Amino acid sequence: MIRAGVIGATGYAGAELVRILSGHPDAELTILTSRQYAGVRFDSIYPSMSGMVDLVCEEFSPNDVCDRTDVVFTALPHKLPMEIIPELVKRGKRVIDLSADFRFSDVSAYEAFYQPHTAKDMIEKAVYGLCEVYSDKIRPAAVIGNPGCYPTSLLLPLIPLLKSNLADPDTIIADSKSGVSGAGRSPSLATHFCEVHESFKAYKVAEHRHTPEMEEVLSREAEKPVNITFVPHLVPIIRGMLTTTYASLTRKVSPEDIRDCIASFYEGRPFIRLCPDNRMPDTLNVRGTNYCDIGFRIEERNNRLILISAIDNLVKGASGQAVQNMNIMFGTDETAGLAGVPFPL
Amino acid sequence: MIRAGVIGATGYAGAELVRILSGHPDAELTILTSRQYAGVRFDSIYPSMSGMVDLVCEEFSPNDVCDRTDVVFTALPHKLPMEIIPELVKRGKRVIDLSADFRFSDVSAYEAFYQPHTAKDMIEKAVYGLCEVYSDKIRPAAVIGNPGCYPTSLLLPLIPLLKSNLADPDTIIADSKSGVSGAGRSPSLATHFCEVHESFKAYKVAEHRHTPEMEEVLSREAEKPVNITFVPHLVPIIRGMLTTTYASLTRKVSPEDIRDCIASFYEGRPFIRLCPDNRMPDTLNVRGTNYCDIGFRIEERNNRLILISAIDNLVKGASGQAVQNMNIMFGTDETAGLAGVPFPL
Amino acid sequence: MIRAGVIGATGYAGAELVRILSGHPDAELTILTSRQYAGVRFDSIYPSMSGMVDLVCEEFSPNDVCDRTDVVFTALPHKLPMEIIPELVKRGKRVIDLSADFRFSDVSAYEAFYQPHTAKDMIEKAVYGLCEVYSDKIRPAAVIGNPGCYPTSLLLPLIPLLKSNLADPDTIIADSKSGVSGAGRSPSLATHFCEVHESFKAYKVAEHRHTPEMEEVLSREAEKPVNITFVPHLVPIIRGMLTTTYASLTRKVSPEDIRDCIASFYEGRPFIRLCPDNRMPDTLNVRGTNYCDIGFRIEERNNRLILISAIDNLVKGASGQAVQNMNIMFGTDETAGLAGVPFPL
Amino acid sequence: MIRAGVIGATGYAGAELVRILSGHPDAELTILTSRQYAGVRFDSIYPSMSGMVDLVCEEFSPNDVCDRTDVVFTALPHKLPMEIIPELVKRGKRVIDLSADFRFSDVSAYEAFYQPHTAKDMIEKAVYGLCEVYSDKIRPAAVIGNPGCYPTSLLLPLIPLLKSNLADPDTIIADSKSGVSGAGRSPSLATHFCEVHESFKAYKVAEHRHTPEMEEVLSREAEKPVNITFVPHLVPIIRGMLTTTYASLTRKVSPEDIRDCIASFYEGRPFIRLCPDNRMPDTLNVRGTNYCDIGFRIEERNNRLILISAIDNLVKGASGQAVQNMNIMFGTDETAGLAGVPFPL
Repeated sequence: MIRAGVIGATGYAGAELVRILSGHPDAELTILTSRQYAGVRFDSIYPSMSGMVDLVCEEFSPNDVCDRTDVVFTALPHKLPMEIIPELVKRGKRVIDLSADFRFSDVSAYEAFYQPHTAKDMIEKAVYGLCEVYSDKIRPAAVIGNPGCYPTSLLLPLIPLLKSNLADPDTIIADSKSGVSGAGRSPSLATHFCEVHESFKAYKVAEHRHTPEMEEVLSREAEKPVNITFVPHLVPIIRGMLTTTYASLTRKVSPEDIRDCIASFYEGRPFIRLCPDNRMPDTLNVRGTNYCDIGFRIEERNNRLILISAIDNLVKGASGQAVQNMNIMFGTDETAGLAGVPFPL
Repeated sequence: MIRAGVIGATGYAGAELVRILSGHPDAELTILTSRQYAGVRFDSIYPSMSGMVDLVCEEFSPNDVCDRTDVVFTALPHKLPMEIIPELVKRGKRVIDLSADFRFSDVSAYEAFYQPHTAKDMIEKAVYGLCEVYSDKIRPAAVIGNPGCYPTSLLLPLIPLLKSNLADPDTIIADSKSGVSGAGRSPSLATHFCEVHESFKAYKVAEHRHTPEMEEVLSREAEKPVNITFVPHLVPIIRGMLTTTYASLTRKVSPEDIRDCIASFYEGRPFIRLCPDNRMPDTLNVRGTNYCDIGFRIEERNNRLILISAIDNLVKGASGQAVQNMNIMFGTDETAGLAGVPFPL
Repeated sequence: MIRAGVIGATGYAGAELVRILSGHPDAELTILTSRQYAGVRFDSIYPSMSGMVDLVCEEFSPNDVCDRTDVVFTALPHKLPMEIIPELVKRGKRVIDLSADFRFSDVSAYEAFYQPHTAKDMIEKAVYGLCEVYSDKIRPAAVIGNPGCYPTSLLLPLIPLLKSNLADPDTIIADSKSGVSGAGRSPSLATHFCEVHESFKAYKVAEHRHTPEMEEVLSREAEKPVNITFVPHLVPIIRGMLTTTYASLTRKVSPEDIRDCIASFYEGRPFIRLCPDNRMPDTLNVRGTNYCDIGFRIEERNNRLILISAIDNLVKGASGQAVQNMNIMFGTDETAGLAGVPFPL
Repeated sequence: MIRAGVIGATGYAGAELVRILSGHPDAELTILTSRQYAGVRFDSIYPSMSGMVDLVCEEFSPNDVCDRTDVVFTALPHKLPMEIIPELVKRGKRVIDLSADFRFSDVSAYEAFYQPHTAKDMIEKAVYGLCEVYSDKIRPAAVIGNPGCYPTSLLLPLIPLLKSNLADPDTIIADSKSGVSGAGRSPSLATHFCEVHESFKAYKVAEHRHTPEMEEVLSREAEKPVNITFVPHLVPIIRGMLTTTYASLTRKVSPEDIRDCIASFYEGRPFIRLCPDNRMPDTLNVRGTNYCDIGFRIEERNNRLILISAIDNLVKGASGQAVQNMNIMFGTDETAGLAGVPFPL
């Protein structure tokens, strides 16, 4: 059994890690930490799991964590992970970090959008954990920078088309829509039920900090600098993210060409589902799952491709992909712990 | 492996059976029938399950069903089950019926609220499938009348208190609130998003036909005729049912007395969770699960007991309890297929 | 024109007062105060009203308020109003207070559930502003204790039946359900979208402090001490409150008797709507309005009456009734500012 | 008083017309027709308006309608209006049609996306009722083709920028999101609460028939053929539409340039609100109003303009704009009946 710890277990991403790892056939949850809830039973904070999880949250202590784990998931706000991860790695732990701290190869891009980086030498050891694209590098990695939710939803459908030169990298516009759980558990006016329930709006228009994360990966895959336009919106649902991506096609192609391009790129990958032509992705269908559903449409008159992808922002967009990374790193079945049958509604 | 068939697989209760049985370690889904969708792949109707369920819906045929199953779940509107179940039973199949057709011992009560019963001799063979109360009778049963959602949510908290003579059976008022999935998948103005989303209302006030079902069971357990007042309401959530039950106490009791009464009655039963004093049941905590969460408060000045119970109307209130019945009937672990770790939100 | 000020204008009840008073034909909004937003334009906090309201929020100052108003609405948390209202009244202002500070005749009841009262001599001058019941006392009042939302929803349907001795005051159970705006605008986990959106739960079971408020009024009207059982629940809607009240009937009565009792008591009152027999109140139908919709059912077998009432908790349950009180106090049309045609959905 | 009739009064757009016209100071509702509900009181179908609207729905009869109206609103499915409007116009009635039947100048475009047009000679007399752009033509018009909801939300922000040659008409991508009321009142699986409540999805991707409507208007204003890419999505809210439009800028411009362009184009128009730089449109802020809120962002690195507009699809996107058209046609205050103070939430 892989002994797993979750640092920051009581936020939404942390709690989702606890859910998945509690049901994982090859892993055992050994330690949960929480600054706010140290000393409190986890299942009193998330009573849905009463009777399933009996751990008590602890203050973070490197010794305790290292003694009891093989892999550590850090589900903390940006900046905290880079302060604690070097010590964990030095002591031989493998770390999967859900913040942005280890997602960038280019530290200056990170620093432009976040803050000064205090563990620069660790960046080289870190691998961007987009499982379906970088599994070879993930397998031996010491540190995983687990991708952001928006990047996951954009990159998975787009990368095959960029790599095969079907989509023009200079024309990419991504219009994303996220459920409210992406904003985290801390109460704020922005997540107040009454402000959200009958509201739809854009936010951080063309200035969200997931943009440089996406651009670094796209530039790497396109082998040229890629600038995109990215606008996120808030949808009044709990879980779910849908990204509608627009790109000009570089040449005349048929729907079959697009379908083949995506299907062959992801052949054998269990969590990519390509929708049939007569159906488009719906967040409902991926709710609670690690799937990324992908659909597309070619608009011939404008020679544009429209890509649509749906994920659960807390699963494939965060904790599910983190566990998938663990599975790849430890050589277990990639779907272990992530194979529950999805709800019909 | 238990070979299981679902008759009426494309309604919400049917689809939920498909979900649970697809992930059941000791059962195998062998046949799905649907009048409306015969010839159509199930996962094109419920695309969330794409890649997990590859069955095609069929027209119902007694021969096909009997050839390929050990147990048959009928998830049909009232009246249809009593027409087909006798034949299935005659051919040795065990049947779990999710309609009201086989829930009543007293056929006249059924006929007063539903329609003439056409399989009266089968009623004696049928057992009311309230798992935590009647497991001894369920084990050998040929036919299970799977309890209604409202009855499940009322009976589980109330029966222990009636049987121990703590709650006065002449004073019972049950105020229930159900999520919209209880109304089924057929579109109607009553389930139109715009009519429901910012609405809360009562319906079938004191005339819902789950009332006689509850009263028959309560009368049996109290060993005297019990009449209750029952008012259902519609809540704008997909899944979930909360019942607030009011009853006068027969004598002065402490919270510990109530807690002991319920806890000892359900000792060892995996799906009953008694909430701590400082927390009340919330439908969120049972969403997607087979749990029944129970809480209570004694109001001393009026010497009244307030019982609160939460279930997922589609799981413990329908398909989950149905599978739990199957597990009891076939001697497998009672929690098989029902043990997924609940979502934190 | 009546010059009106709102103290605490940026909470939900305050903002609703601003909405109603901005459109009032006989009143003029002259001052808005807010501790948190002093110096900020009101319509930058509530952008829906951009172009309709051009006031800037100010710090509360008794002089400024008294100079510019004829009537003052205090929409503050409990305890603050009793500190400032005596001064306002001394200087001749009429005050409508939306907190509990001036709702009680019996100061000991207030102090048992809230805190020590620091303006006891003002209590005698205060009138409980349940408009349809106490308009004669409201007309000349210096201070109005504007009723709580739950009390309004319970008292309006129940008082006629108590006064006519049809409902037995010893048997009253009120099961209430409130929309989330009742919890106010301050962010908290309890109002976080993700915790509420697919949740239904009870809270403060049999211990909500609106209970003594209801009991004081019921006791006065019944001319004997009345104890009720009251359980509030939280519904995932923004606005709306539905109360289901159960009471034993004192004698055999017909539906017409009940209908006549309520209809004659409220004859000519514009905001009470008695639903036809075939329809029950729905919060959707009173959303954004000052109506209280009332329906009922007699359960003959148990000789119980079931009363159902729906209001918008922010309008009839707070700010709408406050303006209705102003209208009565100042002799304008009782419906002035409250007569907008309701939305169909 | 303008005597107004509503043909098709019981759909959502019809009911919204009834709401607005019932409160209109210069109009009087004289006749409501409904095939489905002939003989039924309107307020029994929409009980929110009980006590405010006392009309009974009638079968449509040209004579009755012509005898009792000065203006007729047709809120019917496509195809029916073109069958009845010619007769009404011949008899001197002015007609505002909420369907697509009279929105197109180019009948072939209509026929390509809808069906053969049976009142082609009437098309010349019809004016596209985009109030803020075509009021001069609207004033004397006999027939108004009231704009679609998506076109309204796209055209209002975009037209000023096209006309001033700031936005490149060859680069327009419109990503729209609509509330569920846009799908109408007829129940269907697509509007079933359980299918929608936790769902977000695109539909009719690049093939929605509002596209040719938008393109005809844009081409006219740009004085060259314009093809756009248009993708609509469904948001789980009742009312509201947000459109995010992307276009390349033709030259380097400042935010002030964009602001000035829009502000000067709509100077003095009461229903256009340009958001300040630090705030973006939110459907919450226009709910129940006739406003179109507009915001924008320039993305300098890609020299792209992002326009965001929010409307209530049932008001500015349908019935509110229809009444605004009536106001313009009859020379009353353009805001009459549409000036209610918006709700804060």
